Amino acid sequence: MFRLHERLAAETFEVARWPLCRVLLMNDRTYPWLILVPERAGLKDLHDLDPADHGAVMAEIGRAARALQRLFKPDKINVAALGNVVVQLHVHVVARFTTDPAWPRPVWGVRAPEPYDQAGAGETIARLGRAFAEGD
Amino acid sequence: MFRLHERLAAETFEVARWPLCRVLLMNDRTYPWLILVPERAGLKDLHDLDPADHGAVMAEIGRAARALQRLFKPDKINVAALGNVVVQLHVHVVARFTTDPAWPRPVWGVRAPEPYDQAGAGETIARLGRAFAEGD
Repeated sequence: MFRLHERLAAETFEVARWPLCRVLLMNDRTYPWLILVPERAGLKDLHDLDPADHGAVMAEIGRAARALQRLFKPDKINVAALGNVVVQLHVHVVARFTTDPAWPRPVWGVRAPEPYDQAGAGETIARLGRAFAEGD
Repeated sequence: MFRLHERLAAETFEVARWPLCRVLLMNDRTYPWLILVPERAGLKDLHDLDPADHGAVMAEIGRAARALQRLFKPDKINVAALGNVVVQLHVHVVARFTTDPAWPRPVWGVRAPEPYDQAGAGETIARLGRAFAEGD
């Protein structure tokens, strides 16, 4: 049975549940940063996904990326399945700006997360929900 | 028409050409590190790929990852489409070890690449070629 890793649960807000993935907002307002977690038990690497789920994972990465693009107009979208710290398969989809503090390096480990305040988190989640609904 | 970005060409060795991607070995012997470049002109982000290519890109990421797994027995495979520096769409597939110099951080920007010598590059390319042929 799928169960969200407790560290992912602690560091994110749930934004949506899509056919394959749970969609989470990273609690770091430095970057518009989504995490997609395929709701399949026991997966570690991207290539552990069943080929039957390949279309869905690519479609949902695209859906997340296009919503970030529309909402935040970033210069680049970074997509990554790393999992060196949290072993449960999860895919980062991060909106990047040439002006952000990590550019052009990847975002991981560059600086401590800057958590949203309650209003900021609620507003961002609502905006993302609307962008997903307008979608594609 | 597809043309490999000159920086990718300069920093890698070609290992194979698959139905969708050109397969490159990063010239950094610190990590077993492949780069997959879909041979489609004008792509920047992963979600720019035509849905008709989604199955192939996932299959080829898997093929690259499984070959690295068999050859090098890493602790984790990292997969990422970043493109903050080289804009042409390319997907990193990197074998990671808990003992490697960047662990658990991502590999980018941690330290200067350590180029292969000629014999080392030739041997690694040959081993990868055999692992791909045994493949899957």
